[in-house]
Amino acid sequence: MRIGILTGGGDAPGLNAAIRAVARRAWVDGHEVMGVHNGWAGLVEPGGVQPLDAHQVSGVLAVGGTMLGTSRVNPVSDPAAMAAVQRHFQEAGLDALVAMGGDDTLSVAKALADRDLAVVGVPKTMDNDLHGTEYCIGFDSAVAIVTEALDRLHTTAAAHHRVMVVEVMGRDTGWVAMMGGLAGGADMIVIPEFPMGLDAIVAHLRRRRERGRDFSIVVVAEGASVAGVTGEPAADGPRDAFGHILLSRRGVGPQLADRIEVETGFETRVTVLGYTQRGGAPTAYDRIWATRVGAAAYDLVVDSGFGLIPVKRGDGVAVTELATVVQEQRRVPEELYRLGQVFY
Amino acid sequence: MRIGILTGGGDAPGLNAAIRAVARRAWVDGHEVMGVHNGWAGLVEPGGVQPLDAHQVSGVLAVGGTMLGTSRVNPVSDPAAMAAVQRHFQEAGLDALVAMGGDDTLSVAKALADRDLAVVGVPKTMDNDLHGTEYCIGFDSAVAIVTEALDRLHTTAAAHHRVMVVEVMGRDTGWVAMMGGLAGGADMIVIPEFPMGLDAIVAHLRRRRERGRDFSIVVVAEGASVAGVTGEPAADGPRDAFGHILLSRRGVGPQLADRIEVETGFETRVTVLGYTQRGGAPTAYDRIWATRVGAAAYDLVVDSGFGLIPVKRGDGVAVTELATVVQEQRRVPEELYRLGQVFY
Amino acid sequence: MRIGILTGGGDAPGLNAAIRAVARRAWVDGHEVMGVHNGWAGLVEPGGVQPLDAHQVSGVLAVGGTMLGTSRVNPVSDPAAMAAVQRHFQEAGLDALVAMGGDDTLSVAKALADRDLAVVGVPKTMDNDLHGTEYCIGFDSAVAIVTEALDRLHTTAAAHHRVMVVEVMGRDTGWVAMMGGLAGGADMIVIPEFPMGLDAIVAHLRRRRERGRDFSIVVVAEGASVAGVTGEPAADGPRDAFGHILLSRRGVGPQLADRIEVETGFETRVTVLGYTQRGGAPTAYDRIWATRVGAAAYDLVVDSGFGLIPVKRGDGVAVTELATVVQEQRRVPEELYRLGQVFY
Amino acid sequence: MRIGILTGGGDAPGLNAAIRAVARRAWVDGHEVMGVHNGWAGLVEPGGVQPLDAHQVSGVLAVGGTMLGTSRVNPVSDPAAMAAVQRHFQEAGLDALVAMGGDDTLSVAKALADRDLAVVGVPKTMDNDLHGTEYCIGFDSAVAIVTEALDRLHTTAAAHHRVMVVEVMGRDTGWVAMMGGLAGGADMIVIPEFPMGLDAIVAHLRRRRERGRDFSIVVVAEGASVAGVTGEPAADGPRDAFGHILLSRRGVGPQLADRIEVETGFETRVTVLGYTQRGGAPTAYDRIWATRVGAAAYDLVVDSGFGLIPVKRGDGVAVTELATVVQEQRRVPEELYRLGQVFY
Repeated sequence: MRIGILTGGGDAPGLNAAIRAVARRAWVDGHEVMGVHNGWAGLVEPGGVQPLDAHQVSGVLAVGGTMLGTSRVNPVSDPAAMAAVQRHFQEAGLDALVAMGGDDTLSVAKALADRDLAVVGVPKTMDNDLHGTEYCIGFDSAVAIVTEALDRLHTTAAAHHRVMVVEVMGRDTGWVAMMGGLAGGADMIVIPEFPMGLDAIVAHLRRRRERGRDFSIVVVAEGASVAGVTGEPAADGPRDAFGHILLSRRGVGPQLADRIEVETGFETRVTVLGYTQRGGAPTAYDRIWATRVGAAAYDLVVDSGFGLIPVKRGDGVAVTELATVVQEQRRVPEELYRLGQVFY
Repeated sequence: MRIGILTGGGDAPGLNAAIRAVARRAWVDGHEVMGVHNGWAGLVEPGGVQPLDAHQVSGVLAVGGTMLGTSRVNPVSDPAAMAAVQRHFQEAGLDALVAMGGDDTLSVAKALADRDLAVVGVPKTMDNDLHGTEYCIGFDSAVAIVTEALDRLHTTAAAHHRVMVVEVMGRDTGWVAMMGGLAGGADMIVIPEFPMGLDAIVAHLRRRRERGRDFSIVVVAEGASVAGVTGEPAADGPRDAFGHILLSRRGVGPQLADRIEVETGFETRVTVLGYTQRGGAPTAYDRIWATRVGAAAYDLVVDSGFGLIPVKRGDGVAVTELATVVQEQRRVPEELYRLGQVFY
Repeated sequence: MRIGILTGGGDAPGLNAAIRAVARRAWVDGHEVMGVHNGWAGLVEPGGVQPLDAHQVSGVLAVGGTMLGTSRVNPVSDPAAMAAVQRHFQEAGLDALVAMGGDDTLSVAKALADRDLAVVGVPKTMDNDLHGTEYCIGFDSAVAIVTEALDRLHTTAAAHHRVMVVEVMGRDTGWVAMMGGLAGGADMIVIPEFPMGLDAIVAHLRRRRERGRDFSIVVVAEGASVAGVTGEPAADGPRDAFGHILLSRRGVGPQLADRIEVETGFETRVTVLGYTQRGGAPTAYDRIWATRVGAAAYDLVVDSGFGLIPVKRGDGVAVTELATVVQEQRRVPEELYRLGQVFY
Repeated sequence: MRIGILTGGGDAPGLNAAIRAVARRAWVDGHEVMGVHNGWAGLVEPGGVQPLDAHQVSGVLAVGGTMLGTSRVNPVSDPAAMAAVQRHFQEAGLDALVAMGGDDTLSVAKALADRDLAVVGVPKTMDNDLHGTEYCIGFDSAVAIVTEALDRLHTTAAAHHRVMVVEVMGRDTGWVAMMGGLAGGADMIVIPEFPMGLDAIVAHLRRRRERGRDFSIVVVAEGASVAGVTGEPAADGPRDAFGHILLSRRGVGPQLADRIEVETGFETRVTVLGYTQRGGAPTAYDRIWATRVGAAAYDLVVDSGFGLIPVKRGDGVAVTELATVVQEQRRVPEELYRLGQVFY
């Protein structure tokens, strides 16, 4: 059997552990393993499928990123691209493909499985918002990095009696902000699931000051919506040589910090954690569970469980349909959000 | 309401997060919180119950150990001591007690609940072997430390082409060795649940050398049983001034390393991780779940759920009986053990 | 003797180690120690001088920030403020003051010493640009954090074949960028001491791509000057409710990233490390040398070496004049800058 | 020119940075670089010299150990071995050799230079005890690891009111214990340079207890001499199948802990940091200075400065004779030792 492995979308710590798990399980059983490079681009374009050998996966357990490269190429809505994927899949002689990614990558996997390609998935997204699984590769590492950053920012915020706004990952959902904020002792957590007005934030910060707390840490998901503040670049903002508005990747953090300072008069600073949240060695937890879902994906391949994906349920690995995990986003539940508020 | 909090047995990273969660929830509702110092010793002896205030729990989220102190005092089999506990409980005016600990501490909690004291539990053990819960405070941090140590030992083992034996926590069960070994890329994992002969270990290390792997990492739980090797001190070993055999806290690691070197002729070294596994800042995961089970323990107190204990089930917190978690030890299942062997 | 301690300017990891060193040395000799709160503000305003006791400095060695608080208040050019400082100094009964800070804080210390106040200094600046000393408190920790961030960003840059621009501290000098870039394997380092045109940067990145390096890390000091790029907010940029231009604390990084992407067509991202560079536990090196210069500052106090400051020279501590360290900024020498270029 | 690089003795974090620096400098100038594998064994035995290419040194900056492997083989006293080294040096066509190591490795380098082989040195030893240099590769990383371990052990020692004895590297000198103990807040530091009786240690621990400090951390260098305690295995201790006394690599720590417990009655535990002190990613400081001395060693090669070695002096790199650095061990000075005692 010849098994391909592909990683798509943003890179995440733990992907290499999952790749290694699939490959080692396959080699033990005498199968051949191919690496598909740079996500779906490696099947849309020719030449993107290369043999993987034992030497290459040695030592990758502790390394972040993805050894196969990745891209955000998504062929789903382009019939020619989909046809190319199917053609290159066959030309590479793949008997099965393990596609690791978030809802974007996995929706391609589902579409290919619907066309009878032998594809299984592995759940990966640092945003942790795939439906039907308690674990997505990379999330624990992202939370760990945010927590470490909050530990660091506490001392400087305290020394200067400042409000520190910390913008973290999360365009649509607030898992990283919620869990990182809880672990890092945030004094306020602002996430997309629970929109909040600038007034409420300002009032809370004033109350803290009145109670003698002379610094505050506000964790905000980049995609959170704060009435009175916008993360969008101003229409009259700086433009590039071609007239495009630049700096447009910015989230809500910097403007929120500016607004807080103007409204409260408290010295306020912003830190955008950005790409540091993706990087570096995966946590032990991410390595273990990436290994477990990776190994389970291999089991699905062997059992011809195409169109399926292993997910974490409690202490073990269960199996669900690719269709299930991409159908909707998993959102931070109110119970968890309320728990965070106790610590404000 | 006046609520006491107690931590017993070995200290574990995350205990302070759980203490903080109980206390903050209680204060928000207007209750009074008391710290019981040094585990059950704080109730066996007079004077061990002191008020806890908000200032004390500020900043403890990131701090390992337990701010309340701990001990291994266990009054269960001593009627006078049990009577003292009940008397000091009443004299301190406690309306309820949250006891955080492993099976030793929680068996006392259960015995007191059986005598109608208002006691709830919180699961804590770095060994992760409490029955009926997917999470015990401290385990994720222990695994993280073991993983980091294995990452470090890999480079030195590789540079010197050595066998490195790493002894980790686990007298009765092998959770830390299993999960740490999986995350740290151990080439062999030896745990109490699956006894193994020295011959099998030696044969495996020789096979690796024949395949060109010129170094190996063997992770062994301190309580693992290896036929042909014993962790007990020799009867003719060194003794102290009073004639007691010393060095008796040693696990199986050092002797296993010596035996491997003698049998294989491969240069072999041993590292006993020891108390470093207990220490330092808890991982984000431990802070989050310690907070969640701590908050849930407060809910039990308010709902008069005495004799009960919050446990992790999947993505949430469930409740079970103290009697359940102490009835037997949770052991590493065969499926997980076999997964580890794929990576040898 | 009653000795005051003050920390001014930005906070830095290691300040608490220096405070502890002064205090412990003083207590051993039977002196009294006072903490001056929030930098020079604690002497400009009344009530800012409080006793320091042994309990307070216990455990602070590993804690970042400054336990005394800090501010950027600088009374030098305000005669009334200087008079207030002198008055509160006397009212607090101080026999000597140890002032820890960078050139701003130390220039006040010098001005007070010139007026015969008993003041000695301790060198602190994460920018590492004080003249006449090989060590400033906080610098090693800043470099360590930048290095760790670069390690993290490497994996994500590699996975996505991106250019990653990393903006680090350094308004006037490039020490953090230079040393962090060297340790973190930067592919290009841009610092204020050696201005560079956008053209040169773009040409270098293109050459790397031609040589098959499909990602690059560019480290840029916030204050670096790049011809063709400006870190200043556009005059027509967003303004606050009062018409002030906001987001004005931004360095050159984001615009440099935008310009690189436009010019090269390579996918380019920016990370601004910001306040995370200040925070968290000091490195071992910072704790050791902060302790050594702190202890030496106490020796100066005892020896009436007012107007002086201990500095690192080779393996030991020497003494120089406050006037010397503030007279000019220490700049990255060309030899070091050229060494970095070998690794591009 | 064809330049060989060799690493000998124990591995140390930072060696790869030094290898990379020599190689990159050489490649920029158009020279060829060869790796000598496994220390002097790679020249005593045939086949140990292999080409090094740019791909191999990519990414090694952050990796501990040594990519060239190492050994403790020392040919100096064996004329046949020395002849073999010279022969293989010539057969490999080496024009020069950069030998990185401690006094053992460098004494071979010196002996070869004395025989007119083109050899320069690079100072490497985690013990930091080479004469004539303020920096040896690996020392800063060792101190960082010891400091981190002490931070961790503080919380568990405090929770249990224990004495914790921590044995660290240092057979002949106490640099790691001294600096690690200073940075980690040790309550007592015991090093070879300043022998101490068990009585003095016990008396100090009792005084601390009387002052209300209910836990203590004692850092001891493995080679420290404590009157009344011996780290040597007992003559009647356990033996292997061949009758050899085993466990003989043990330092003074475990027995010191046993003796303290017996003498004081305080609960006492021991942690032997062992090989974890060698491992893992080098600190930023080690990467920077390993790069600087590595680059300077290349300069020596180009300038035919054979028999010489670059050393750190103050903020820069100086050059001295190999004969100088191996002539005697650098010892912890009394002034530094006394500074540590202030913090007991």
